[in-house]
Amino acid sequence: MSSKYKTLKEECYEANMELNALGLVIYTFGNVSAVDRNDGVFAIKPSGVPYENLRPEDIVIIDFENNKIEGEMRPSSDTKTHAFLYKSWQHIGGIAHTHAMYSVAWAQAQMDIPIFGTTHADHLTADIPCAPPMKDELIEGDYEHNTGIQILNCFEERGLSPSEVEMVLIGNHGPFAWGKTAAKAVYNSKVLETVAQMAYLTLQINPSAPRLKESIIKKHYERKHGKNAYYGQ
Amino acid sequence: MSSKYKTLKEECYEANMELNALGLVIYTFGNVSAVDRNDGVFAIKPSGVPYENLRPEDIVIIDFENNKIEGEMRPSSDTKTHAFLYKSWQHIGGIAHTHAMYSVAWAQAQMDIPIFGTTHADHLTADIPCAPPMKDELIEGDYEHNTGIQILNCFEERGLSPSEVEMVLIGNHGPFAWGKTAAKAVYNSKVLETVAQMAYLTLQINPSAPRLKESIIKKHYERKHGKNAYYGQ
Amino acid sequence: MSSKYKTLKEECYEANMELNALGLVIYTFGNVSAVDRNDGVFAIKPSGVPYENLRPEDIVIIDFENNKIEGEMRPSSDTKTHAFLYKSWQHIGGIAHTHAMYSVAWAQAQMDIPIFGTTHADHLTADIPCAPPMKDELIEGDYEHNTGIQILNCFEERGLSPSEVEMVLIGNHGPFAWGKTAAKAVYNSKVLETVAQMAYLTLQINPSAPRLKESIIKKHYERKHGKNAYYGQ
Amino acid sequence: MSSKYKTLKEECYEANMELNALGLVIYTFGNVSAVDRNDGVFAIKPSGVPYENLRPEDIVIIDFENNKIEGEMRPSSDTKTHAFLYKSWQHIGGIAHTHAMYSVAWAQAQMDIPIFGTTHADHLTADIPCAPPMKDELIEGDYEHNTGIQILNCFEERGLSPSEVEMVLIGNHGPFAWGKTAAKAVYNSKVLETVAQMAYLTLQINPSAPRLKESIIKKHYERKHGKNAYYGQ
Repeated sequence: MSSKYKTLKEECYEANMELNALGLVIYTFGNVSAVDRNDGVFAIKPSGVPYENLRPEDIVIIDFENNKIEGEMRPSSDTKTHAFLYKSWQHIGGIAHTHAMYSVAWAQAQMDIPIFGTTHADHLTADIPCAPPMKDELIEGDYEHNTGIQILNCFEERGLSPSEVEMVLIGNHGPFAWGKTAAKAVYNSKVLETVAQMAYLTLQINPSAPRLKESIIKKHYERKHGKNAYYGQ
Repeated sequence: MSSKYKTLKEECYEANMELNALGLVIYTFGNVSAVDRNDGVFAIKPSGVPYENLRPEDIVIIDFENNKIEGEMRPSSDTKTHAFLYKSWQHIGGIAHTHAMYSVAWAQAQMDIPIFGTTHADHLTADIPCAPPMKDELIEGDYEHNTGIQILNCFEERGLSPSEVEMVLIGNHGPFAWGKTAAKAVYNSKVLETVAQMAYLTLQINPSAPRLKESIIKKHYERKHGKNAYYGQ
Repeated sequence: MSSKYKTLKEECYEANMELNALGLVIYTFGNVSAVDRNDGVFAIKPSGVPYENLRPEDIVIIDFENNKIEGEMRPSSDTKTHAFLYKSWQHIGGIAHTHAMYSVAWAQAQMDIPIFGTTHADHLTADIPCAPPMKDELIEGDYEHNTGIQILNCFEERGLSPSEVEMVLIGNHGPFAWGKTAAKAVYNSKVLETVAQMAYLTLQINPSAPRLKESIIKKHYERKHGKNAYYGQ
Repeated sequence: MSSKYKTLKEECYEANMELNALGLVIYTFGNVSAVDRNDGVFAIKPSGVPYENLRPEDIVIIDFENNKIEGEMRPSSDTKTHAFLYKSWQHIGGIAHTHAMYSVAWAQAQMDIPIFGTTHADHLTADIPCAPPMKDELIEGDYEHNTGIQILNCFEERGLSPSEVEMVLIGNHGPFAWGKTAAKAVYNSKVLETVAQMAYLTLQINPSAPRLKESIIKKHYERKHGKNAYYGQ
């Protein structure tokens, strides 16, 4: 495998394998991509390949207009959603899509995940948004491209910033998460699944559990992400 | 082990062991069979043998009239259900029966699993049917043969095609799944269990979660199974 | 370790380790014993020893009057319950007590586990009984001995046979299971935990799920345990 | 690594790794500390370091006034909570903080965990207290120090002894547990998570499940912790 995209493919491969190792996907479900902004391309999992068979050289290179640049295999069926998000959000470096159990359950329930505690607030200060299912005319059109539009519209309507809220649920479908790298997108997918399960259990125990107070939301976010952050090294 | 059915037994053995590795059965629960249409026989797990002790040569060969063709051991107690389905549905190549947790729970609840999301729609476009418990006169008769009839009747009454819907729940009992090979039947058993858990969680979060829109059902099914399918290689 | 009870201790040790391997206990929770009817003694786990440190030679030998016959360590705090059951039920060869999650939850809910499906009926034809919490005067007395009485009373009041129903829940406490051997008692503990989880999920999905029909209960039990049984080898 | 705190750092390191091995934390979540009363210092996990990268020499040494005594890295962001508890409660030797699933769910539900059974009573005789979320003026102040005050106030208001009740939930946040050693604090974190899941399931099965009777609470506690204790060696 001698390719100018060797490193990018390997980053993408490692992130996909981590998705599987974390128990966020089974069989061929899910996919992760990694972008190279200088070359204007991203690397993505090939479609329908089980994780146990996946090799770095199977990763496909695509540009932001959905042209295949390198690779023998057909790219993930969700490729156009990735391309649209990379084109729309210049700062992101990786995207992950899973069918993780609790994330999907909230997406199928078509409900935002309320911010109930500090585990959530350590990562984002908003409820995790659930974009509504697509209108019929969009489904019949360019479905995966329109999934990207659906995500963008959801963030614009709610005034959310994709650099602060790095995850979303698509109603009836499942989660997408992103970050500065593919590895960070996978990390955010795991955090989302954890927060999704915690919120589920919270409401089972106390259906009228109160949302986290604004003062604590702010405190936890700032100690990790604020100017005087004192979390991490 | 020199047998003309060596390959068939090995296919059946591998599929049974995979059922266990996927966590869909414990102890001696469950069974998988694989058919050879040319020879008019199928291979099936012996009854009551724990998976950790199972060997390829223990697999039993049975014809469609339930005669034992080869093998020292008594075949699975569900053998007649397998025979009846192979005889009725010429296109199927493997059948799996499990006692997987969430699949059994829906079967015991005697409810169809509603199609709530795309994980489900990527595999089938209908709710997963739950056949009602058998009438008393059938139970007292040829029980396992009649379980096959129960499945067939359920599909006929609802106008379902067993090549499109490759899984069913038997009320009060548990799931059967099938496919072109024994491995595909096991795959479908795992998909069923996953979808069963997702639907369970969805209803716990939102008891009035809406069924997936017809337009999305159609889209997801066609991108994987339709004429212009673009999922997989 | 040269002891006339070497084999008995090893049987007991293996069964205790299996309890842990099956995920039915953590730390020092739970205990399994194995009886030798000829010698009128049973072997039981020492009290408060974590499974990862347990050795065959740590197993303690006790007679039916609760005298220590051999062993350096203090026996399980539940020893008198085991002794009472061995004395009362001549046919049983092993007893297991766990703190498995779903079994304990039903015990704490103080409810019988209803027979909802064939997984349950393949093992016993009755609801799994939950003995009520002990009366205060018995608690203050010989507590563990009285736990045995509590189990016996529950079976007598309900007309249950301990050779047909090999498991019970103690209200507010947890499960006991038994069988012809210690290994069978552990097997029954795992079956109980599985059935407990299935019944839990069934009621979450459908709070008015019907009990299994008598005709199916009878059929499944007889195909495994009846005169013309055709399950197993 | 030649340090006078070498043993203390290793105790702290082992306890942190055990937290991860028990599945009570993911990524960088959670932290354990171990105290040396003679030197008036404690060892604590560095902030934001994933468990798979953690080394004994990364552990940070802090005194009770929150001064760093030894170590290259920034200590856990929860360090001031640990310092405050060590200063307030002279008898404790280790503290653990996790984001374990069921413990966090109860904390987010802002409810005490009721004592429903003997698994709970074998460890403590009270409901596991959930301290209310902090008042806004305290959050904006010295947040982690004030979390310690929050815990202390909760114990004082309820008349609880921290040597008998070795665990607490912080509303909206999660659990803290402690004990004579760091290893015991981790053990108590695992017991808390187990009891939290059992209580959750109990209420799902029977929303009006009764609290454990006082007579059984007393009996189970005394057989393990009382003057005539007969549990353990």
